[in-house]
Amino acid sequence: MQRIDFAKGNGLVPVIVQDYRSREVLMMAYMNREAWTKTQKTGKAHYYSRSRRGLWLKGEESGHYQEVKDILIDCDNDTLLLRVRQRGGGACHLGYRSCFFRKKAKRQWLAVAKRMFNPEEVYKTK
Amino acid sequence: MQRIDFAKGNGLVPVIVQDYRSREVLMMAYMNREAWTKTQKTGKAHYYSRSRRGLWLKGEESGHYQEVKDILIDCDNDTLLLRVRQRGGGACHLGYRSCFFRKKAKRQWLAVAKRMFNPEEVYKTK
Repeated sequence: MQRIDFAKGNGLVPVIVQDYRSREVLMMAYMNREAWTKTQKTGKAHYYSRSRRGLWLKGEESGHYQEVKDILIDCDNDTLLLRVRQRGGGACHLGYRSCFFRKKAKRQWLAVAKRMFNPEEVYKTK
Repeated sequence: MQRIDFAKGNGLVPVIVQDYRSREVLMMAYMNREAWTKTQKTGKAHYYSRSRRGLWLKGEESGHYQEVKDILIDCDNDTLLLRVRQRGGGACHLGYRSCFFRKKAKRQWLAVAKRMFNPEEVYKTK
């Protein structure tokens, strides 16, 4: 099995996360080797949080877990694509299904999705 | 218009590239400010090549241009999602439509797509 190239990104690989049915792109995150191992063992997406500098089980706080259906790798072995079943209202900490909820118009970014949940209710501790 | 956060990635933002109709993820690349400006001016996807350290018009050599249909930005303003019409046989320099043509099986990455073009015929100069 060809190895994931963690070295190029100093221990991290970017991970694109996509809904396994609609193919909507939900978010982008990073994995280190530990997150990669945990994701495979549990079937739930784990990432490396660059801001918190540690392992991050997506949904740990919100309950919005991501069940991993498929994992794909790119031609350079340095980027992953996860197809997931997104639990709960969405992947975005602002309450949207996808972090990519704004589209470029002439002179502004326009929200093209509606909020699925109230982040203040979901993230109690922040 | 909220600014793209180029600072966080030392001048570069990751760009996820998706087919505008099927929503298939085709590749991941990076843009600097110049690539961003050129993409908007021309409607064709331009990236920053980290290996060649310079502006890269996708399709310049292969003819497999990407016509930009929509541009979305994530909640942190540091990642872009391009929805494109992919010209030619595909986005991947190995001849596949998507760079993510291998899926994880038990102990190996299995190719789950077939080649769309012969890279030796398309990339003459390499």
